Amino acid sequence: MSAADPRFSINQMTVKQLSLPELVDACTALGVRGVGLWREPVRAYGLKAAAGLVRGAGLAVTTLCRGGFLTAAEPAGRATALDDNRAAIDEAAALGTGVLVLVSGGLPEGSGDLVGARLRIVDALGELAPYAAERGVRLAVEPLHPMFASDRCVVSTLAQALDIAEHFPAEQVGVCVDTYHIWWDDAAPAQVERAGAGGRICTFQLADWITPLPAGVLNGRGQIGDGCIDMRAWDARVAAAGYRGPVEVELFNDGLWAGDGRELLTETARRFTAHVG
Amino acid sequence: MSAADPRFSINQMTVKQLSLPELVDACTALGVRGVGLWREPVRAYGLKAAAGLVRGAGLAVTTLCRGGFLTAAEPAGRATALDDNRAAIDEAAALGTGVLVLVSGGLPEGSGDLVGARLRIVDALGELAPYAAERGVRLAVEPLHPMFASDRCVVSTLAQALDIAEHFPAEQVGVCVDTYHIWWDDAAPAQVERAGAGGRICTFQLADWITPLPAGVLNGRGQIGDGCIDMRAWDARVAAAGYRGPVEVELFNDGLWAGDGRELLTETARRFTAHVG
Repeated sequence: MSAADPRFSINQMTVKQLSLPELVDACTALGVRGVGLWREPVRAYGLKAAAGLVRGAGLAVTTLCRGGFLTAAEPAGRATALDDNRAAIDEAAALGTGVLVLVSGGLPEGSGDLVGARLRIVDALGELAPYAAERGVRLAVEPLHPMFASDRCVVSTLAQALDIAEHFPAEQVGVCVDTYHIWWDDAAPAQVERAGAGGRICTFQLADWITPLPAGVLNGRGQIGDGCIDMRAWDARVAAAGYRGPVEVELFNDGLWAGDGRELLTETARRFTAHVG
Repeated sequence: MSAADPRFSINQMTVKQLSLPELVDACTALGVRGVGLWREPVRAYGLKAAAGLVRGAGLAVTTLCRGGFLTAAEPAGRATALDDNRAAIDEAAALGTGVLVLVSGGLPEGSGDLVGARLRIVDALGELAPYAAERGVRLAVEPLHPMFASDRCVVSTLAQALDIAEHFPAEQVGVCVDTYHIWWDDAAPAQVERAGAGGRICTFQLADWITPLPAGVLNGRGQIGDGCIDMRAWDARVAAAGYRGPVEVELFNDGLWAGDGRELLTETARRFTAHVG
């Protein structure tokens, strides 16, 4: 097949059945130029070794996933989260990526206070953003679909993510635009414009929306073209807002994970070309 | 136990293991004054018989669930949906309720056009609203949680529901405010105000948000008090917006349905008193 689209980046989670060397090898074979990495497999392989492997293959690390979980109300939980995020920032810098994606965190046990949880995210970013900036890393606040609001991320819309990010300079804190999380939101197109005008689009990620959702709803993201999201329209919006960076495909899908990882990467690159490129 | 709160109404789906006579009997025993009925069990029992049974017990029918599914793009599908909604309006009138709840419908097979689907809802309501008004029935557009946007309801926020309803006189088309669907939305409190100011709150329904969500996500609604939604705060907002009507508890939950229906009704009334009343 022809080489992958030059804008295409594969998020490591999409093909998590591949080891890091297998992933790098498959990217090289396909002409894929970028990878979004995850902390856990990177640490399992060794941070320095991972950085060397990816750099040696000429692959750009388009993002590191993920920091965040900044909603703890207790001082001890907050301190632990800040420590972990500083470590994530250090890891991002070591991998040579300029973007750390943040999944902000859900409600503390027994709490129903979304507003308070969102305020604590701003407060925590006040500590983390300068630390990240000193290391050449931007923090990308990712809104997650509202079905994750209680247990994973109290930031549910692009508007909320920007409300948080705009407390800080654009070179320190931006947002992650992911089709899976915002496709349903009629306010999102205008918020993409707002994000672009402010120079806040740190990364653009794709996954398609398919139903029925599986239990727990985490691992039901659709391969590009399998669902109802108009990928070309979202790509055009993000481009019109001024974003010129790589586009990551990030799928969490038990069915896709059960198959061959190299074939999945090839198919994902092909889908990107067909539906976006 | 003491009698149920006078504002409390039980949605029939919450205790679907009860037959209609069992439900009416249990409501009488508990002093529950209102029921929200569903078309399917009413038709199975017989419309006239159901109307007589409920009226004879002195129960108010607070809503009929449900009409809607108005997003078909093909003329035949649209005509079928309009016919079915006229039948639902007739049934609501026969049952003596002034509110027909509408679940607007998802995307047609193969379509990703949310905007077009929402426009078709407005178009269909243009035919249905006068028909309903002549029969003393208001149509309540219900926003469903965004996790249902593709396959069940393209109306995902209270703002969108009001945008649709406001094409019509308030005495013809309003909205359903259901905590389960809107609790995550930081724009929803202001939209409750907007709905109240326009006289558009047709009904107020409660369910709590619990995780993990089950496969298919439909039947995972939490008993009042089991989740993270601040029921008292939402009740206060809806009351401040001027709503003085009954409050329905509508739970879809496989676990609750597996138990005894009368006990579930008793417990639901108790939870209402504890967390809202």
